[in-house]
Amino acid sequence: MSELRKDPVTGRWVIISTDRRKRPPDFRLESVHIAPDPSCPFCEGHESMTPPEVLAYRERGAADGPGWSIRCVPNKFPALERMGEVREHRDGPFVSVDGVGAHEIIVESPDHDGHLPTLDDPQVERVLRAYRERYHDLAADRRVKHVQIFKNHGERAGASFSYPHSQIIAIPIVPLRILEEMEGLRAHAADREGECLYCEILRRELASERRVVAENGAFVALEPFAARFPFETWILPKVHARAFEMLSDSDRGAFARILKDTLGRMNRLLEDPSFNYYIHTAPIREVEGTYHWHLEITPHLTEIAGFERGTGFYINPVVPEDAAAILKGEIRWSTRPESSPR
Amino acid sequence: MSELRKDPVTGRWVIISTDRRKRPPDFRLESVHIAPDPSCPFCEGHESMTPPEVLAYRERGAADGPGWSIRCVPNKFPALERMGEVREHRDGPFVSVDGVGAHEIIVESPDHDGHLPTLDDPQVERVLRAYRERYHDLAADRRVKHVQIFKNHGERAGASFSYPHSQIIAIPIVPLRILEEMEGLRAHAADREGECLYCEILRRELASERRVVAENGAFVALEPFAARFPFETWILPKVHARAFEMLSDSDRGAFARILKDTLGRMNRLLEDPSFNYYIHTAPIREVEGTYHWHLEITPHLTEIAGFERGTGFYINPVVPEDAAAILKGEIRWSTRPESSPR
Repeated sequence: MSELRKDPVTGRWVIISTDRRKRPPDFRLESVHIAPDPSCPFCEGHESMTPPEVLAYRERGAADGPGWSIRCVPNKFPALERMGEVREHRDGPFVSVDGVGAHEIIVESPDHDGHLPTLDDPQVERVLRAYRERYHDLAADRRVKHVQIFKNHGERAGASFSYPHSQIIAIPIVPLRILEEMEGLRAHAADREGECLYCEILRRELASERRVVAENGAFVALEPFAARFPFETWILPKVHARAFEMLSDSDRGAFARILKDTLGRMNRLLEDPSFNYYIHTAPIREVEGTYHWHLEITPHLTEIAGFERGTGFYINPVVPEDAAAILKGEIRWSTRPESSPR
Repeated sequence: MSELRKDPVTGRWVIISTDRRKRPPDFRLESVHIAPDPSCPFCEGHESMTPPEVLAYRERGAADGPGWSIRCVPNKFPALERMGEVREHRDGPFVSVDGVGAHEIIVESPDHDGHLPTLDDPQVERVLRAYRERYHDLAADRRVKHVQIFKNHGERAGASFSYPHSQIIAIPIVPLRILEEMEGLRAHAADREGECLYCEILRRELASERRVVAENGAFVALEPFAARFPFETWILPKVHARAFEMLSDSDRGAFARILKDTLGRMNRLLEDPSFNYYIHTAPIREVEGTYHWHLEITPHLTEIAGFERGTGFYINPVVPEDAAAILKGEIRWSTRPESSPR
């Protein structure tokens, strides 16, 4: 028997359907192959192949030359550009806005194979420090309403380059996903004397431990109750904190460790799957309303098909409690269908 | 310069970004390869490989044997099953419901290669007749709140089998996507003396023709103003009609022709892309509120990545007006990057 689960914050429904795991090609395991490329624009020594850097951490060398540990550059093919005013255009029911914003790349390591689970802790911390620095710079632009930090790993997850990198897109509109969460949090707080729903969820998850993957002093990694995707994992600060950009220097180490640990588990136990992660944080200059920032990791092991696109429901063939046990190494993951026909 | 467009009905935002079309591997063209398979459970003569049929159109032969033109069977690996009561379970903020519903397959042709654009018109009409018959049967179940008819074509679109087939999932909850549309329609009707927003959009689109791909007496195929995906195409009835299941026998031919025509254009001009389509119709027994049923076709030419998952924004590298011109054969589609590195 399958089960329908409702996300407590957004009200989004998911079908948890373990039967479907048995059907032929539900999982497409395609490990992410890394092939160094002489024409890779992100490799050390190839700095002239990108636009000039907007931030770099370096021990030696000059801007746009070798010697860096982290390097941030504008995306050569930006979704949005940093110029002009945010003008609205209306034609009856059709509303559009000029594509003003920013789109940047954060190169995470001078090593072409230096993916997050393999980097040393100080380097992962540097990646997070760069996230925060770029966040603050972009958020200072009054045209920008939201800054989305995210990572695409693997071709199936939309990565155009195998080189380890993250991206930042600054947009002139607060995204629907954030507004939906804020509305869920607002409704809960109104019912419960201002309590944060994410804090309540954390308290329950830590008490039951069934969906907890890892934790340290400041953070928890857990499978959400209504996970949309197999092995979807969220990392949340244990103490209520509205926005990622408020992450203190002292907590940055704990966040780096749990992020590296969680991605390392996926890399080892799920055979280096394609994945996305993205940081959900309160909108810029949003003083009204509650929020509790977190990072969501969504592996790409199944396809989004017509049912999902049509309804907004997701079908997840792995029970979140099982996913947590697998990522903790308590049970082994085996999904390869026996001998079914395609 | 890119452009942000807002869907008039749902308020969903899309970045229309033609610059990104130039970047290396934005489009993954993978034509759908069809290989007949001796172990294919949907082929004529293999009827015993599926659960017993719930509907079939046949000139000869007995149930669950050869001789059919259309055959509907329960999905062997159902997302939801037709048994039990819809019970709700609560544990603090965590709400779930038993997975009651139905999940069926509609085999569209006895020919393993008989995809919709290649079928004769009467056979496409039979597919639509089967949609309606199964819809009515499933909707009669008082536990069912919504019936989603959809099609996955190609592995990237989530199809497990290359055999031409559609699917129906009956669910005990009205999906979010439908509720969002109904809310947009309600707000518009309240402002405009009951006017249907889809009717208003149709009037404008037919007047300007810029986004119209095809039309006949009863239906229009168009690229929506805020298309999420390249070549996303909607087919709408010209005369206001709340629900698909009310499609008359006399209009079924017109719908079959425009569906076949639109899919044929995609097949020819986009090299048989993976795609989904799904029918959006009013919830069952929904008498309050307005709705205007339609079918949405979404080709899979780009990947959904971290930005989309994080924000709910989509990035579409093809301007809908260009997509319409391409599907009309007025301009040629060419996206293969010249010689850029991966």
